[in-house]
Amino acid sequence: VKKSAHLTLVNDLETSAIEISDRGLAYGDGLFETLRVVDGKVPLLPYHLKRFSLGVKALKLGNPLSIADQLERYVRIALKDAFKHAHLKSAVIKVIVTRGHGGRGYRPSPEPELNFITQVYEYPDFPSSNYSEGISLQLCQHRLSHQPALSGIKHLNRLDQVLASAELEASGSEEGLMLDYQGNAIEGTKSNILLVENNKLITPNLEQAGVAGTMRQYLIDNAEAIGFEFEEKNVSLEQLKSADGLAVMNSVFGLWPVKEFAGKRYAVHKICGTIQSHLKAQLSY
Amino acid sequence: VKKSAHLTLVNDLETSAIEISDRGLAYGDGLFETLRVVDGKVPLLPYHLKRFSLGVKALKLGNPLSIADQLERYVRIALKDAFKHAHLKSAVIKVIVTRGHGGRGYRPSPEPELNFITQVYEYPDFPSSNYSEGISLQLCQHRLSHQPALSGIKHLNRLDQVLASAELEASGSEEGLMLDYQGNAIEGTKSNILLVENNKLITPNLEQAGVAGTMRQYLIDNAEAIGFEFEEKNVSLEQLKSADGLAVMNSVFGLWPVKEFAGKRYAVHKICGTIQSHLKAQLSY
Repeated sequence: VKKSAHLTLVNDLETSAIEISDRGLAYGDGLFETLRVVDGKVPLLPYHLKRFSLGVKALKLGNPLSIADQLERYVRIALKDAFKHAHLKSAVIKVIVTRGHGGRGYRPSPEPELNFITQVYEYPDFPSSNYSEGISLQLCQHRLSHQPALSGIKHLNRLDQVLASAELEASGSEEGLMLDYQGNAIEGTKSNILLVENNKLITPNLEQAGVAGTMRQYLIDNAEAIGFEFEEKNVSLEQLKSADGLAVMNSVFGLWPVKEFAGKRYAVHKICGTIQSHLKAQLSY
Repeated sequence: VKKSAHLTLVNDLETSAIEISDRGLAYGDGLFETLRVVDGKVPLLPYHLKRFSLGVKALKLGNPLSIADQLERYVRIALKDAFKHAHLKSAVIKVIVTRGHGGRGYRPSPEPELNFITQVYEYPDFPSSNYSEGISLQLCQHRLSHQPALSGIKHLNRLDQVLASAELEASGSEEGLMLDYQGNAIEGTKSNILLVENNKLITPNLEQAGVAGTMRQYLIDNAEAIGFEFEEKNVSLEQLKSADGLAVMNSVFGLWPVKEFAGKRYAVHKICGTIQSHLKAQLSY
């Protein structure tokens, strides 16, 4: 069970409560970012701010740049707080941004007063074998909604992820693989996926569904520097099963190889180690 | 702007605040019902309880019957409160039910402690011309997510409705019509739709997307008694434009004819008057 938060702010007020009239609760009308803190820094901060800006634009919350500035301000407040506790040099910051309250039913106010909800958590204690030996990935029965207008962004409508991850309860698998309704492999419930085919990296394109993770984007941007070709494209279930290697990634845990998926066992591909070393050297992951 | 709530409860506690750790805020992990009170009664209560039970089942929140019993209990508490204020004989009760807090990220606890959030509002003052002359219906550009696993139920993931209804700001239309990604007409942003074709009633089927409204279900169940054939089927945009009559319906306002949609004007079909009279006689709408 996730530890309770060390710091909780609603805007600049230290409180753990929010008005029930908030549109985040009523409609999931908002966005969130979950950021890893290492040694008092947030290595992927620019990637989070970029993805968040795209979300602000998609949800028409206001000026993307100035709202991303506000997000950054709350991340820095949270960082200072995490710093105060020596054991929180590694931490996770979560910021939820909602369209505040008001409006007429679903219809939003044209000039919303956003609410920023900031939480600081301890960094979870992941088994080291997740990194060295890999994890079990389970094929989820629940499929992702088809919604190109909201794909890529990290909004608060997350019933797909909730229902898919509930399927992991019985098996104890660390992660679940979600398909869309066309049968494309899209992502994990809390991660993006990475395939190795002929020493080339592939990740599913997310134009129709899915969350464009910041670690995924970092690796796309830095693949060449690390020494690999990287391609975004449609990925079928069969392709996943016949890949030379498979991994899951997100900005909290970094990269975990997959050792087993849908009855197939995978060797840990050497590219996984190369990426992990790069993340350690460049981002202190 | 919707008036603020007269009574707000979180479970049995009179408060207007909820913990920010609630999964309703974090993921939209829950359901809601909005119920009209007339003369101290909720005429469509059995329909709300039925739809709510289907939602409990779809989200795997627990035992549908016992959770629906709890919903009914909060509705009755709200009714008593509305009764205390003479001017609230007509009122609207909204109950949000969330999976509470806890779990590991998206993954829900196998034994969640649900939160019931109850609010009582004054009945909105709709223009009488909405009933007699009809309303303008605007074609929304934002399309509904394709998600058969969640269609029909009234869950808290409502970004589609928020974004579609934001489009009404510029035109001032009372309601917006939403299509799915196949181009089928599905529903209004806050209502279901009704077509008249050769004196027969038609409403879009909601197996792929949409909310199965309680007024819609009431009319399906009672069409024969009122004297009409009623069919659920796929409806194209063209069919909508060539219909003999068009109306929107929900459990709060009842039934409004559509006088204009996508550049086409519609006469108020006499069936609309027949249904309105029935709703007044049978449900005091």
